[in-house]
Amino acid sequence: MKSVTILGATGSIGTSTLDLLERSPEEFRVVALTANCDVARLAAAAIRTRAQRAVVADEGYLPALREALAGTGIEASGGEQAVCEAAAMPADVTVAAIVGCAGLKPAMVAVEQGGTLALANKEALVSAGDVMKAAVARHAATLLPVDSEHSAIFQCLDARLAERVSRIILTASGGPFRDSSLAEMRGITPAQAVAHPNWSMGAKISVDSATMMNKGLELIEAFHLFPVTADQIEIVVHRQSVVHSMVEYVDGSVIAQLGTPDMRTPIAGALAWPDRMATPGERLDLVKVGRLDFEAPDQERFPALRLAREALKAGGGHPAILNAANEVAVAAFLGGRTGYLEIAAIVGDILDRYDPPAPETLDAVLDIDREARALAEERVKERVA
Amino acid sequence: MKSVTILGATGSIGTSTLDLLERSPEEFRVVALTANCDVARLAAAAIRTRAQRAVVADEGYLPALREALAGTGIEASGGEQAVCEAAAMPADVTVAAIVGCAGLKPAMVAVEQGGTLALANKEALVSAGDVMKAAVARHAATLLPVDSEHSAIFQCLDARLAERVSRIILTASGGPFRDSSLAEMRGITPAQAVAHPNWSMGAKISVDSATMMNKGLELIEAFHLFPVTADQIEIVVHRQSVVHSMVEYVDGSVIAQLGTPDMRTPIAGALAWPDRMATPGERLDLVKVGRLDFEAPDQERFPALRLAREALKAGGGHPAILNAANEVAVAAFLGGRTGYLEIAAIVGDILDRYDPPAPETLDAVLDIDREARALAEERVKERVA
Repeated sequence: MKSVTILGATGSIGTSTLDLLERSPEEFRVVALTANCDVARLAAAAIRTRAQRAVVADEGYLPALREALAGTGIEASGGEQAVCEAAAMPADVTVAAIVGCAGLKPAMVAVEQGGTLALANKEALVSAGDVMKAAVARHAATLLPVDSEHSAIFQCLDARLAERVSRIILTASGGPFRDSSLAEMRGITPAQAVAHPNWSMGAKISVDSATMMNKGLELIEAFHLFPVTADQIEIVVHRQSVVHSMVEYVDGSVIAQLGTPDMRTPIAGALAWPDRMATPGERLDLVKVGRLDFEAPDQERFPALRLAREALKAGGGHPAILNAANEVAVAAFLGGRTGYLEIAAIVGDILDRYDPPAPETLDAVLDIDREARALAEERVKERVA
Repeated sequence: MKSVTILGATGSIGTSTLDLLERSPEEFRVVALTANCDVARLAAAAIRTRAQRAVVADEGYLPALREALAGTGIEASGGEQAVCEAAAMPADVTVAAIVGCAGLKPAMVAVEQGGTLALANKEALVSAGDVMKAAVARHAATLLPVDSEHSAIFQCLDARLAERVSRIILTASGGPFRDSSLAEMRGITPAQAVAHPNWSMGAKISVDSATMMNKGLELIEAFHLFPVTADQIEIVVHRQSVVHSMVEYVDGSVIAQLGTPDMRTPIAGALAWPDRMATPGERLDLVKVGRLDFEAPDQERFPALRLAREALKAGGGHPAILNAANEVAVAAFLGGRTGYLEIAAIVGDILDRYDPPAPETLDAVLDIDREARALAEERVKERVA
């Protein structure tokens, strides 16, 4: 029986993880569930799974959580420090599914307890890749990807033959605007941007998918997770999102992982690893799918791809700046404070403007993150004013 | 350094194998090379690779072989028994690439020396699957597939997780007549049938690919090689031959192997296993390929698929009969003695007509093979007459 903690239990990944855990109660025991502020769903999930502890990151919701859990015996706590304390509780697998840079610290705390970190929070590796990988090595933790693309690569990459890998091919759906012209992109609204054609995801990652910044972040994530150089990672647009990514070996074999767009498959991959577990949901029917397309990504319409590759090559604090500026720009776009095409423009500006020394600690990463956010916020306001 | 013997060194697989060995002379040493009668190519290859022995199966060519190898120090021998003696010489890897049932006995002899048998001769497993697998187990030999589809499945199937495999999906190009109507098929000539759209192969396997009997034989081969039931093996038509086959696991993940249609990739997979080795040849460029299609196979236009599945389910000697009758029918077709659509009709007739007890030894398999051939030859003559 494996013990599991979910950091970010009420979001898209958290909910899918809970679904799997609840289908196999004899195989998994829930240690802690955390959420930002969705007390109703958090408390209900904690009660259903008989979790040991439930935590709201926003302390203002702690009284409501206490009330919802009264008499259940489930511990309730609140605040960012409480999330980190939950992450420190011993668990065989910690699913790190807090979106954005807020998930960085709890994920690091989970690494420090030396178990398996199933990482859905890609920003953690993007911003603090080197720092996090050093911590994983130091604490003999295991880092497993949950992103469908990285889970695919992980499944296709035989760790014993890392030296025989010639290329990683990251697939990208191209998002809802893959066929839109630059002129059409100008007027894109938040509602249009969050309507992803293939995957049902949160708002932030849906916008990242629309701008293809999501693929840029995944490029950086893949660089940290797998034994390849940046130049060995290619991005191919594959609109059906059936092939989730591929690994090419020196003998010309390309190993790919395919599936329906159901995040329960990669989550199950991390939960059951090194075994595999049954999942519900539709199986892939290639005859029904009929056809799979592949195209080169358009760097002009999707400048985020270029920005991410440049940030990865520049190294140091640049990926953290890319990520922070992007989070601010996406929030501003979703809040109606900036235009769609401005997102990449803002990120590019902040990358040009801010060049801090390479961070060597998590605190240094968080300082860069904060400063980049402040600069990006200023930049958003300038344009609005 | 690995020692390698090639049974069938002058055919398509043999030539590709030689190409790989000659590119890595520091990693491979050639023990024996055999051919049916192509003395010129056999002697040249033996001299280039400094083979220990060269063998012609047709003893009439032995004088010519002796002459060609005079003064080289390479041993020359001839006759079917000599081929088996070559197969018995100790070698780390024996590539069994003799086409048709003629390759059965030498492949079995190679198994008996307990090394690795890289099996390109699918008829061996089709006709004598149970007998051969028992021999592999008894002599602690290793059986590796060379067929591109089975090599793909072997690469995608994690042996430690065999119980978690839910499905094997064999891809089929559909051959040159995948879009032809039954009426159009009636007049197909040997020249049309051997022109495979994707792969460059020998005449017999090209015709099998056109009738899709090749896929039927591969279905039976896959059944023997992998831990699945016949019902767990699906066939999907994929005209580009880029996805060479797939394995589905219980979690919904489908692992696929892709590549350009170059047999050197699966051959290298078997030669280097459990490592991988570099190969020459074009790498897969999915953007250039652009699109991959998948369709259900048409059992009406390709009755060979149904015949093969029925023979597999019937078990015993039926797969050997299927294979023997097919070899005779294809030879008759290539020799202009029967029509294209008659191939499957002949095979179906012989399967209906002949129901021997299940063979338990190689000799019993060979008896069934002989009898089925005789019946098929009669059947060919009846129609001609």
